[in-house]
Amino acid sequence: MKWKRSERLVDITHHLLEHPHKLIPLTYFSDLYQSAKSSISEDLGIVKETFEEKGIGLLVTVPGAAGGVKYVPKLHVEAARAIIQELMEELGHSDRLLPGGYLFMTDILGNPSIMNRVGKVFATAFANEKIDVIMTVATKGIPIAHAIARHLNVPVVVVRRDSKVTEGSTVSINYVSGSSRRIQTMVLSKRSMKSGQRVLITDDFMKVGGTMNGMKNLLEEFDCSLAGVAVLVEAQHSNEQLVENYLSLVKLREVSEKQRTIALEEGNYFTNGGF
Amino acid sequence: MKWKRSERLVDITHHLLEHPHKLIPLTYFSDLYQSAKSSISEDLGIVKETFEEKGIGLLVTVPGAAGGVKYVPKLHVEAARAIIQELMEELGHSDRLLPGGYLFMTDILGNPSIMNRVGKVFATAFANEKIDVIMTVATKGIPIAHAIARHLNVPVVVVRRDSKVTEGSTVSINYVSGSSRRIQTMVLSKRSMKSGQRVLITDDFMKVGGTMNGMKNLLEEFDCSLAGVAVLVEAQHSNEQLVENYLSLVKLREVSEKQRTIALEEGNYFTNGGF
Repeated sequence: MKWKRSERLVDITHHLLEHPHKLIPLTYFSDLYQSAKSSISEDLGIVKETFEEKGIGLLVTVPGAAGGVKYVPKLHVEAARAIIQELMEELGHSDRLLPGGYLFMTDILGNPSIMNRVGKVFATAFANEKIDVIMTVATKGIPIAHAIARHLNVPVVVVRRDSKVTEGSTVSINYVSGSSRRIQTMVLSKRSMKSGQRVLITDDFMKVGGTMNGMKNLLEEFDCSLAGVAVLVEAQHSNEQLVENYLSLVKLREVSEKQRTIALEEGNYFTNGGF
Repeated sequence: MKWKRSERLVDITHHLLEHPHKLIPLTYFSDLYQSAKSSISEDLGIVKETFEEKGIGLLVTVPGAAGGVKYVPKLHVEAARAIIQELMEELGHSDRLLPGGYLFMTDILGNPSIMNRVGKVFATAFANEKIDVIMTVATKGIPIAHAIARHLNVPVVVVRRDSKVTEGSTVSINYVSGSSRRIQTMVLSKRSMKSGQRVLITDDFMKVGGTMNGMKNLLEEFDCSLAGVAVLVEAQHSNEQLVENYLSLVKLREVSEKQRTIALEEGNYFTNGGF
């Protein structure tokens, strides 16, 4: 079957979107469509221009025999800002207030469309970093970790509070939770990471940063290094911050249980290098 | 700015892929590109043909003033079979064998590309069902639930073993785990579901089906109904099966710890109505 340019454009777009951060040789497309490389190059030129114009991402071309094209998800700054604004509006509803000043966020973490956009916002910030693995802690960080991972094309590892037989051999550490100063345990399957990997850690919520700090300590046990920290919502507090370099989308400034108000502001995403 | 057809095709493809199972009015595209509806219809005709030819999915056109176009992810049967075969190969490596005859699957659940394809296989099977919510139990079902949810454009709710303050008010039930016959507890946030919703339940592994059955019981507490059951790996056993109607991708027939062999076969996906 002979493919028309219009059909190739649709199929190439789908293929690239399904394989972010993966180098695809031009011969893959020219063989698939039985088209000359020059035609494929023209196709990719159109895709590249549209992806950049619309803030879908970049198409990076690597020349040479081992070369090809790579789709790098990257939002425009206005789109990232709009997603963060939408999150703040969503989170600001007073019926999210729980006893103790906690914020109900489970529905947001369960919304695949919001998670997809949050993932792309973080993938944009880490588009040029070398990241091998995304690490989170069970349970609520998992959707965020997977959303980022899909855009960066790297695996997710999940730290647990308890050891399970289905994890095989594990490495376990104790750490001090930030706010309550309690000793807690973290467990990760030994097979999860290889030494020397660069790890992005993420979670839905961070106050003092005890859990994040625990994950940082766990990285050392695996001889891995920290590539970045991504937080959906950080909370204002007066204690010493345990994690210094992180990106947050939203900051919870103050909660009044009595007046049922939630004060939010933009996180440090834009000021701390998200763009 | 005036958009060319080639650019519109790339952008329409991206927009549809990002919004599965969502009705998009033709005016959305004609306003966005400042193009006549007849041009947009032609664009959509090309996208539709390519999506169907390549097994990306269907484009369903709803006529009339409230009409529009809807992208329904749907694989070709050969693609679904190839994904299941790949899973079986992945799962069949003898180094996955854990003490007690368990299978290490954590890396597969942490692989966003495999999860994306698994999600599309299940989304294909449930493409014509009315599904409002996808339910799973923490921790390992979460990536599968989110992968399916993204293709069906519905929220995920996560059942937990324990109640947490950040969940707000919860509903809790006791159930009997299938194999060990122990009484266990399941907890779900009250805000998770509304009465009358149709729920697809999913998990990474099922033996007798105790956990699935527990989730079914939990549905009743919320006056919700079961729309389907999706399992990544089911295990052969001689007990009475607690869940009758389910789709599985892979069946674990036998494990020999001594000989370090794993016997797998295709699950009931194709025989039980996946296609």
